[in-house]
Amino acid sequence: MPTSIDTLKEKGRQLRIHSLKATTEAGSGHPSSCLSAADLMSVVFFNEMRFDPKDPRNPANDRFVLSKGHAAPLLWAAYAEAGLIDEKDVLTLRQLDSNLEGHPTPRMPWVDVATGSLGQGLSVGLGNALAAHMDDIPYNTYVLLGDGECAEGSVWEAAALASYYKAANLYAIVDANGLGQSQRTMDHFEVNRFANKFRAFGWFATIVDGHNYAEIVDGFERCRRDGGSQPRVVVAKTFKGKGVSMLENLDGWHGKPIPKQDLPRALEELSNPLGPNEFKPNPRTGGPSRPRNEGTIQIDISRKPGASVATREAYGDALVKVAEKDPRIVALDGDTKNSTYSEKLFKAHPERFWEMFIAEQNMVGVAMGLAARGKIPFVSTFACFLTRAYDQIRMAGISQSNVKFCGSHAGVSIGEDGPSQMGLEDLAMFRAVPGSVILYPSDAVAAEQLVVEAARHRGICYIRTTRPKTPVLYANDERFPIGGSKVLRQSPHDRATVVAAGITLHEALKAASRLDSGGTPIRVIDAYSVKPIDAQSILRAAKETGGRIVVVEDHYEEGGLGDAVLNAVGNQAKVVKLAVREIPHSGPPDALLEKYGISANRIVEAVRSSL
Amino acid sequence: MPTSIDTLKEKGRQLRIHSLKATTEAGSGHPSSCLSAADLMSVVFFNEMRFDPKDPRNPANDRFVLSKGHAAPLLWAAYAEAGLIDEKDVLTLRQLDSNLEGHPTPRMPWVDVATGSLGQGLSVGLGNALAAHMDDIPYNTYVLLGDGECAEGSVWEAAALASYYKAANLYAIVDANGLGQSQRTMDHFEVNRFANKFRAFGWFATIVDGHNYAEIVDGFERCRRDGGSQPRVVVAKTFKGKGVSMLENLDGWHGKPIPKQDLPRALEELSNPLGPNEFKPNPRTGGPSRPRNEGTIQIDISRKPGASVATREAYGDALVKVAEKDPRIVALDGDTKNSTYSEKLFKAHPERFWEMFIAEQNMVGVAMGLAARGKIPFVSTFACFLTRAYDQIRMAGISQSNVKFCGSHAGVSIGEDGPSQMGLEDLAMFRAVPGSVILYPSDAVAAEQLVVEAARHRGICYIRTTRPKTPVLYANDERFPIGGSKVLRQSPHDRATVVAAGITLHEALKAASRLDSGGTPIRVIDAYSVKPIDAQSILRAAKETGGRIVVVEDHYEEGGLGDAVLNAVGNQAKVVKLAVREIPHSGPPDALLEKYGISANRIVEAVRSSL
Repeated sequence: MPTSIDTLKEKGRQLRIHSLKATTEAGSGHPSSCLSAADLMSVVFFNEMRFDPKDPRNPANDRFVLSKGHAAPLLWAAYAEAGLIDEKDVLTLRQLDSNLEGHPTPRMPWVDVATGSLGQGLSVGLGNALAAHMDDIPYNTYVLLGDGECAEGSVWEAAALASYYKAANLYAIVDANGLGQSQRTMDHFEVNRFANKFRAFGWFATIVDGHNYAEIVDGFERCRRDGGSQPRVVVAKTFKGKGVSMLENLDGWHGKPIPKQDLPRALEELSNPLGPNEFKPNPRTGGPSRPRNEGTIQIDISRKPGASVATREAYGDALVKVAEKDPRIVALDGDTKNSTYSEKLFKAHPERFWEMFIAEQNMVGVAMGLAARGKIPFVSTFACFLTRAYDQIRMAGISQSNVKFCGSHAGVSIGEDGPSQMGLEDLAMFRAVPGSVILYPSDAVAAEQLVVEAARHRGICYIRTTRPKTPVLYANDERFPIGGSKVLRQSPHDRATVVAAGITLHEALKAASRLDSGGTPIRVIDAYSVKPIDAQSILRAAKETGGRIVVVEDHYEEGGLGDAVLNAVGNQAKVVKLAVREIPHSGPPDALLEKYGISANRIVEAVRSSL
Repeated sequence: MPTSIDTLKEKGRQLRIHSLKATTEAGSGHPSSCLSAADLMSVVFFNEMRFDPKDPRNPANDRFVLSKGHAAPLLWAAYAEAGLIDEKDVLTLRQLDSNLEGHPTPRMPWVDVATGSLGQGLSVGLGNALAAHMDDIPYNTYVLLGDGECAEGSVWEAAALASYYKAANLYAIVDANGLGQSQRTMDHFEVNRFANKFRAFGWFATIVDGHNYAEIVDGFERCRRDGGSQPRVVVAKTFKGKGVSMLENLDGWHGKPIPKQDLPRALEELSNPLGPNEFKPNPRTGGPSRPRNEGTIQIDISRKPGASVATREAYGDALVKVAEKDPRIVALDGDTKNSTYSEKLFKAHPERFWEMFIAEQNMVGVAMGLAARGKIPFVSTFACFLTRAYDQIRMAGISQSNVKFCGSHAGVSIGEDGPSQMGLEDLAMFRAVPGSVILYPSDAVAAEQLVVEAARHRGICYIRTTRPKTPVLYANDERFPIGGSKVLRQSPHDRATVVAAGITLHEALKAASRLDSGGTPIRVIDAYSVKPIDAQSILRAAKETGGRIVVVEDHYEEGGLGDAVLNAVGNQAKVVKLAVREIPHSGPPDALLEKYGISANRIVEAVRSSL
């Protein structure tokens, strides 16, 4: 039962009023960006979308992503008009104790993923759409974008992938108001160009006057009728600040609220009712059951001690095992699946794997969307290429998304491919993500078990894997709790403690043997949990070994394992950090470990110097 | 004088032979990716490009960017065939002591910017093209891309900007071989789709058979004839591994060299000479003079003590002043110029400013291209949005590009906009870039002077600026050398040292006044040079103040100023870190400083607790 045009117009009027009042009250915000999209928002929320206002978590609800996150007041206004929140709450925008923040965060129900960093929402929307495909639920996902943000390449990554995967349940709406933050956009009002770009990327595109309700309604109708298996976009020509003459289509008003003294005359222009203010929700009935609470994942590990296995390959093995235990687990990869070994899941269960091609930003955004729909996504590529998606990872942190990351090809130990392929800053990057967990297995058993830990853990996890094969160290039933560590060598006479992880753990063990035969026994700790780090154990070891710690990592010296240890021990031990301190060169792995100061020889030297 | 088709074919054959021999000798590399592009490379290097093989730095040389950096052996092969290096050097590929690395780095002359992380080269090419515009030099820039890498959104950022700025001197060549690393690309052999995407983004596009020399030559001719003011792309349908039957168009050979025992039969297929192997360079004559060595930049600063000025605004003022002193300085911004204040340069000298719109990845890539052509680019946006370009920043580090960055809106002190707009991990990000310098002014005088320091310094600099206004602290003639710090409060009886920067320096000064009246004088250090940090001064202060240091930063606790200080003092002082330890909320700036533990009150508490 469609909503009447008059009601939609009235809802649009209310959305405008709320947006203006809220931002003026807050003294900050982006009213002109809200006003350009108010009519589109009205049609989407009150005519297009099907949802149960009483049940945010209903799996059959249509989903909405506000990609142009600075229009948050418009979103809160829509919530109020849909009965999701109280109308008076709208005026608490941006207050310290209000969940109606300046840009949407999941502190608010109905917001799955934080937005506000432009160009990310279409990927998140695609993740929702792919989840619907996987779960065979007929909900649609609507993403409202600004035109300025379509300069972000991530939008075109999402566009390409959406078309490739025939996401016909994905609707983008472009609010083409022609004005960016500091000037006109590149395409200004050339809405044909927008539509043609989307068409070239395989979308069904239609153009509407974004302030003409009949056109907007018809635009969505055309999408439904003619969109076929394509994702669909409604490109709407709009005016920033529409509805208020002091704002309308004027540059210089981005991010500026109407001053208190001018608000009454602005509201005066919006004071005539346009229709009945009523809204009848139209939820889907008979939706699927909620995802059930899964039991704890357990897997069987059967490695031969001393066998030569790369942790990256063990990751792939474990991915298959956990996916077979928990139907929520899915994997994504950026055309590196034969290197990260996520292809093992692709081969075993292709319906659980999404090839995301060489587009890491979109891959992470899609993972955030999948996680919002209850999946447990494992995202993999080379560690260094995760830097491509740092802004998305940052927003995943703000959203506390339940996304797991695996970065392979850590450090100089990858060898001849050279620095562009070496992950040397990934630990620093992930350490600075609030609430993240960082796991760095040194052998195949640890790798498999840490995949299990990551799957069980609620929140962002990063697993760092190594390219070369390394010997299996641990027994198959060894457990690796998050926040723990393993002492692999110890004696009552240890002269120092060496803390390492991944490839450098093996170097540390070689060093320990050499030092031991030389009469200088050392303690060796596998700090497989880089974050949270096992401060207690490391401190205790330091105390028992003369207060001398050598930390060695295949990573730059800033922000990685060395800094984690420094923070753990403070001034209670003398910490020597071995790490990569210059831009590495192509070369054989062992030669690079030596050249860049993190080999067994160098550990031996460092220990001796510290005595 | 065009090169004969037979010669071009023969050059192509040689390029194939070199690529195969080099990768087989190295035991690693990407020969199939080289072979698909060999014919294109031949035409570009030996028919299209005009350069002086004896003079890599000639400003009139055409430029080449290998965006598909894994085809490095092909590039080295072209160098050999152009007489830029010795033929025998080609076989040193990937050796530790060879500059012919696995992916191109500027250790090799003629390589301006490291590539190997896909999707970045077109931006670098655009930077070169824009430099040509600025300097009015008629060189062209050629960028060779793979098809798989066109999934990267950064390619479409570059495409949009190139079209907007009418970069008719920019030529992209897409080697569309239909095979990615782990499977078929999304578009496979649908070269029409590629061409249409570029056309939708405003390019002149032509399609050729990438192994038909006459077609390739004609394709470039058509671009020249019909390209008008548009950037131009030659979309070439090719086969991975072309020319060698054991490789040709077969999935599974990405990144695999031909084994030694199979090389002879592969080479056998390439053993018939196809034409004369001769090359007559065709450099442009009468090029412009080289950029002169500039004198040291000096500016006049005239701030009133105690005046309320945001460091972000002072950045804008200084940008104008340094640009007026050194013609190499240019600024780029991502549609935030009215917030970062880079708009002051835009208004004063629009020909020195490039609006890069909401596309940070491309902005950084363009800056790398401009820097390669001798410009000194200052790139600005919100600090948090620089995370969008971390992979490009990483590659800038590997390239040791002379690019300066300014990230505004640091920390929670931005207030109500909320976490999506707050830079809270930017110090960690830039600290992990090898060779980077990080400068964090606390007042307008420091901000201006640090812009000067950054302009003078050779290498990556990051300047962090603050949104709120803060009082001028320093005299106009105060100097701020990189690696230094300032002691702003000291007495013989200081009980602790507080190290701060930016907004927290002002909180520290307030705390110092409060503590002093309470009988607990403290030392206050402005660590405006976060990297390199003034370890000596901080250590000395610690020794003189009971070994007690409190570091306070508007940044997450991992990887920032606190960790810089920890590394500086090691176990020689007890360091307490005050930083943001959770995802912040929207709210008024002062309330957020308080809530997140970095206000004057919190510093007072921390100092007292440490006694």
